[in-house]
Amino acid sequence: MSVIYFLDLLGTIVFAISGTMSAANKKLDLFGAYFTGFITAIGGGTLRDVILGNFPVGWISDINYMIVISLGVIICFLFKQYIRKLKRTLFLFDTIGIGVFTIIGIEKSLALGIHPFLSIIMGLFSAVMGGVIRDMLCNDIPLIFRKEIYATACLVGGALFIFLDFLSIPSSLNQFLTISCIIAFRILCIRFKISLPVLKY
Amino acid sequence: MSVIYFLDLLGTIVFAISGTMSAANKKLDLFGAYFTGFITAIGGGTLRDVILGNFPVGWISDINYMIVISLGVIICFLFKQYIRKLKRTLFLFDTIGIGVFTIIGIEKSLALGIHPFLSIIMGLFSAVMGGVIRDMLCNDIPLIFRKEIYATACLVGGALFIFLDFLSIPSSLNQFLTISCIIAFRILCIRFKISLPVLKY
Amino acid sequence: MSVIYFLDLLGTIVFAISGTMSAANKKLDLFGAYFTGFITAIGGGTLRDVILGNFPVGWISDINYMIVISLGVIICFLFKQYIRKLKRTLFLFDTIGIGVFTIIGIEKSLALGIHPFLSIIMGLFSAVMGGVIRDMLCNDIPLIFRKEIYATACLVGGALFIFLDFLSIPSSLNQFLTISCIIAFRILCIRFKISLPVLKY
Repeated sequence: MSVIYFLDLLGTIVFAISGTMSAANKKLDLFGAYFTGFITAIGGGTLRDVILGNFPVGWISDINYMIVISLGVIICFLFKQYIRKLKRTLFLFDTIGIGVFTIIGIEKSLALGIHPFLSIIMGLFSAVMGGVIRDMLCNDIPLIFRKEIYATACLVGGALFIFLDFLSIPSSLNQFLTISCIIAFRILCIRFKISLPVLKY
Repeated sequence: MSVIYFLDLLGTIVFAISGTMSAANKKLDLFGAYFTGFITAIGGGTLRDVILGNFPVGWISDINYMIVISLGVIICFLFKQYIRKLKRTLFLFDTIGIGVFTIIGIEKSLALGIHPFLSIIMGLFSAVMGGVIRDMLCNDIPLIFRKEIYATACLVGGALFIFLDFLSIPSSLNQFLTISCIIAFRILCIRFKISLPVLKY
Repeated sequence: MSVIYFLDLLGTIVFAISGTMSAANKKLDLFGAYFTGFITAIGGGTLRDVILGNFPVGWISDINYMIVISLGVIICFLFKQYIRKLKRTLFLFDTIGIGVFTIIGIEKSLALGIHPFLSIIMGLFSAVMGGVIRDMLCNDIPLIFRKEIYATACLVGGALFIFLDFLSIPSSLNQFLTISCIIAFRILCIRFKISLPVLKY
C-alpha cells in the first residue's frame, strides 16, 4: 500500500467524521448522519472524476473507501463526547486530508493532460467540494466562503506542487513539501488571524 | 413493455407529482413547479448513471420519461384539490416507486461488476437523491434526513435483493419480493412509529 | 474565432460578473466571490456535458474560459461601484448570454442525436443551471423559480431554433433569429409585466 493511498484513506475517514459531526449539530437521525459523513468524504473526489470524465469514480470501484467511511461514522457514534475534545488532533488530520486530496486531484488532472492552472482548480475541487456539498445539504452557506482560509491554502499548496513538478523534483518529495506547506500556511493564517478581504457594496 | 419498465415509468410520474406538489407549497410559478417535478423524477437515476459512468443517462435517450413527467405536472395543475385527498394512494405509489428505483439501481450496478454492498448504495441513490435535490432546490434540509424511514426501507430491501440474487432466485420473483418487503417495512415503521435514533451532543 | 465562440466567452464573463455580484450581497470573502462567479459561469455547461456524456467538459480543455472568468471577477472588484450603475447594459449582455448558451446546448445535443424536445431541455439547462447552482450555494430559492421570465424565454427561443432548423434555415441566420427572439421576449415580458401563474393550494 503506497503512502499516498494510505493518506487518501486517512483523509476520507477524517472527512467522514467531520461530516457526521456537522450532521449531529443539525439533529439529523442515524441515516442522515451517515449519509452526510459519506457525502462529505466522497463528494470532492466524485465531482473531480465526473468533470474529468474519469469513470467509474474512485470509491465505486474500491470498497475500502466505504469501509473507512463506515468506520468513521461508527467512531463518531461511539466516542462522540471524546471526539469533541480532540479538536486539535482532528484539525491536524483534516488539514493533512485537504493536502492529500489537493495533490491527488492535481496529479490525476496532469496525467490526463489538463492545463496546470486548471489542474490546481481540480485539486481544490477534490479538497473542498465534499464540504461544500455537506453545507448545501445541511442548508448552510458553505463554510469555506465565509471563515476558513483553507481554500486559499489548497491554491497556494497546489501552485507550489506545480512549480516543484516543473523543476522535476521527485514526486514523493514534492508531495511531502506540498502537504507541509498547506499545513504551515493554514496554521499561520489561524495563528495570525489572517483572512481574505470581503467583497461588499 | 416489461413490467419493470412500466413500474419505472409509474415511479417517475409519482415522483414528478410529489415534486410538483412540494413546489406548490413554496409558491413557485408554473415553470418552477414543472422544473422541481422534473428534477425530483430524474435526479436519482441521473446521479446514479453519472457515478457509474453510464452515458447518456436514461431519460435523455428515451422521450417516454419526459412524457410521463409532463403528464404528472399537468395532472397536478388540473386536479390539485383532488390529489391532496389521495394521500394514501400517493403514499402507496410513492413506496412502489422507491422500491422499483432501488431495484433498477442495484441491477444496473451489479451488471457493471460493482461490489454488492456498493450496488445497494447505488440503489439507494436512485431512489432518494431525486428527493434530496428537490429539497436542496426548495431550500429545505432533506426530508429523508429527519423524518421518513424510507431510506432505511431501501437499504433493507436492497440487502434482501442481493441476498436472494445470491441464492439464484429468478429475477422477476426477486423484484416482487423486494418491492413487497420495502412496502411492508415502510408501512410497519409508520404504523408502529419506529424511527432511527438522532445523533446529538 | 467564430462568432458563436466569441459570444460564448462573452456569456461566460457576464455570468461570472452576475455570480460575483450576487456573492457580494452575501458578504462572501474574495475566494467565495470568485468561486461563486466561476460556478455561475460554468455550472450550466458542465451539467449539460455531464448529462450528455460529453467528456472532458468544455472549460477543462480550454483555458480561455478560466481567463475570461478571472477577468470578470477582477472587473467586479475594481469597478464594483461603476458596475452597479450599468444595470441595463448588464441585463442586455446577460440576455445575450442566455440566448447563446441555449443555442450551444441545443446544437451539441442535436449533434449527439438527442430528441429535439430533449435538446431544448438541454439548451435550457445550459442557460439556467449555473444560476440555479449559484442560488443553491448562496442558500436562496433559485431566482428563476420565482420572478424572472427568462427560463420561459429560453424555451420559446429553443422551440423557434428547432423549428427553423427543421426548415433548413442556415445555422448562423438561425442563431441570430433565436437570440433576437429571446431578447425580444424577455424585454416584452418585463415591459408588460407578464409572469407565469403561481401554483398554490
